[in-house]
Amino acid sequence: MVAMTEGQKAVVSPEAVDFLTKLKHLPFASLLSGVLTMPSRITSLRETVASNMAPGEAALIEKHDLRIKRVTIGGVPVVVIEPPFIAPEKQHKIMFNVFGGGFTLGSPQDRAALITAAELGVRVYSPDITRSPEARYPVARDQCLAVYRALIQQGPPGGSGPIDPADIYAQGSSSGGQILLSMLIRAHMDKTPLPTAGLYLCTPAADLSGAGDSLVSNARDRDVLPGSFLWSMAQQNYPPLVDGAAAGGSFDDKDPEYSPVYYTGYEPSTFPRTVITVGTRDFLMSSGIRMYWRLRDAGVEAELLVYEGMWHGFNWDQNVPEAKKAREDVFSFLERRDITNKA
Amino acid sequence: MVAMTEGQKAVVSPEAVDFLTKLKHLPFASLLSGVLTMPSRITSLRETVASNMAPGEAALIEKHDLRIKRVTIGGVPVVVIEPPFIAPEKQHKIMFNVFGGGFTLGSPQDRAALITAAELGVRVYSPDITRSPEARYPVARDQCLAVYRALIQQGPPGGSGPIDPADIYAQGSSSGGQILLSMLIRAHMDKTPLPTAGLYLCTPAADLSGAGDSLVSNARDRDVLPGSFLWSMAQQNYPPLVDGAAAGGSFDDKDPEYSPVYYTGYEPSTFPRTVITVGTRDFLMSSGIRMYWRLRDAGVEAELLVYEGMWHGFNWDQNVPEAKKAREDVFSFLERRDITNKA
Repeated sequence: MVAMTEGQKAVVSPEAVDFLTKLKHLPFASLLSGVLTMPSRITSLRETVASNMAPGEAALIEKHDLRIKRVTIGGVPVVVIEPPFIAPEKQHKIMFNVFGGGFTLGSPQDRAALITAAELGVRVYSPDITRSPEARYPVARDQCLAVYRALIQQGPPGGSGPIDPADIYAQGSSSGGQILLSMLIRAHMDKTPLPTAGLYLCTPAADLSGAGDSLVSNARDRDVLPGSFLWSMAQQNYPPLVDGAAAGGSFDDKDPEYSPVYYTGYEPSTFPRTVITVGTRDFLMSSGIRMYWRLRDAGVEAELLVYEGMWHGFNWDQNVPEAKKAREDVFSFLERRDITNKA
Repeated sequence: MVAMTEGQKAVVSPEAVDFLTKLKHLPFASLLSGVLTMPSRITSLRETVASNMAPGEAALIEKHDLRIKRVTIGGVPVVVIEPPFIAPEKQHKIMFNVFGGGFTLGSPQDRAALITAAELGVRVYSPDITRSPEARYPVARDQCLAVYRALIQQGPPGGSGPIDPADIYAQGSSSGGQILLSMLIRAHMDKTPLPTAGLYLCTPAADLSGAGDSLVSNARDRDVLPGSFLWSMAQQNYPPLVDGAAAGGSFDDKDPEYSPVYYTGYEPSTFPRTVITVGTRDFLMSSGIRMYWRLRDAGVEAELLVYEGMWHGFNWDQNVPEAKKAREDVFSFLERRDITNKA
């Protein structure tokens, strides 16, 4: 259960209080997480989550009159989401979206993809990456890279040629943030030009080694799910297998391509300007904070937006005003609409 | 006791681990805080804290060859701290420093004041405000305002005339942040020009109403002191008395001059550009976060710097590398040294 004091309720919207106080965490989550997220349980977890999310996704498609088509790009299935109106200055721009869901769940036409098409007003290209445990690291990353390379080299099928990397926004949520960052690092090491219109990391999983303050401080009874549940789900399904078994000690989970917060090659001349959002209840808050410092200290233009009392992935909620506000802050950054008066 | 997991230790320096794991919180702090911080106990608390801090302060004065003099400005005693070398472009600049210490403890020549003189390289003017319970709100605020007005109207004693508000930096730590913000609000309402060289709020107490997520999440066994101890100390000594007794329900603790996060008059044309620092273990983290959003959403240029694994007031530590880094980040902001490449 998520308990809230009056002082905690006072700093968030009534809608957020309603959402949080209705959450029911599984009892004994820390004991049961390992069992509940074993590879054999993922199919049924997916069905539960997908059926919970379906009505909201259908409502978004209808509300915003979004057109959705499935294409193949670079040999990978991709969902393309198009809003009914695209402003002239955005006709050439696209959003490259990597969905989240603990590497195992989620969908390329999830709320993040749909809302971004509607509210940022651009075509969204969302690779239908293979989830875990069917595919483990680095399969999804390599699928994203294949799509990205095809977009900047040949362009989308039926389109008017290659897309300029300067016209490509990129975003990833949670596990999608890890996959996207790993793709950008791999591209950078291979001297492939990075997408530079602007990068959005929504509560990114930038460190899969288990390091971070909020993995402890927000693990229990504060976030939308117990941290142990999400952590077990990732750890049991995503890391590469060695000789058919989970890699364990033989795999370096601080490898910079796997835990991008440890990459030391970020540089302002090639890496996109970046906005990162987290909430104070978010079990990945520390991951976002540390990723911000890694970029900023490398000289990359970066903005960290920390939302009081908000949880992991609150950003895509349709009822909570803080979520709408956060999206406005993020899209303002991506559109370079400066909201402060720099003296 | 502050317990740390390996994942929490991995993201801070060895010096920070050493500091945190040696902390011993009082047992039963939440039961005893009220008794330990009663007005009658403040004198002995002050003596303990002052004798703990004295060697470090003396070492700073010697190390940086700081000159210290006591003057009277606007009828208020003020400590002036001067570094041995002041760069030509900083000869006319000063730092207006409001010390912290839960409104009851602290000193105008504390580590914050001394380090700022040495590392920012400017003369620091630090009002020796009357602490609580001897003086309650708004005495210290009004003393600061008297000093500030005298500086911009007559100038310091023996100086060369009034100081231009554009040459005045201002900073306040913790309770000093509340006093300073209240002074700025009062000045703004009275049409007194605000100091505009740059404002630094170090983990500011911007909300004295009890609202905030981190007042709960970081209250116990995470921060440098139990939140209940610092909170009781403030609540028992600082609020104004009404008819000789603590104000209780008759005093609006969300009055914007008392809890500056609720002020709606911040505006970019008059308010200084502002940098705010907090740590993820900091019981006032939420206060700093919310103050950032209040300023930013009003269009004021503001920067929020959140430090992973750091505690309330870590910034002035002499041994922890994160503290030195944070000061460099803050002073870079104040000096307008842009460390990122804005495309």
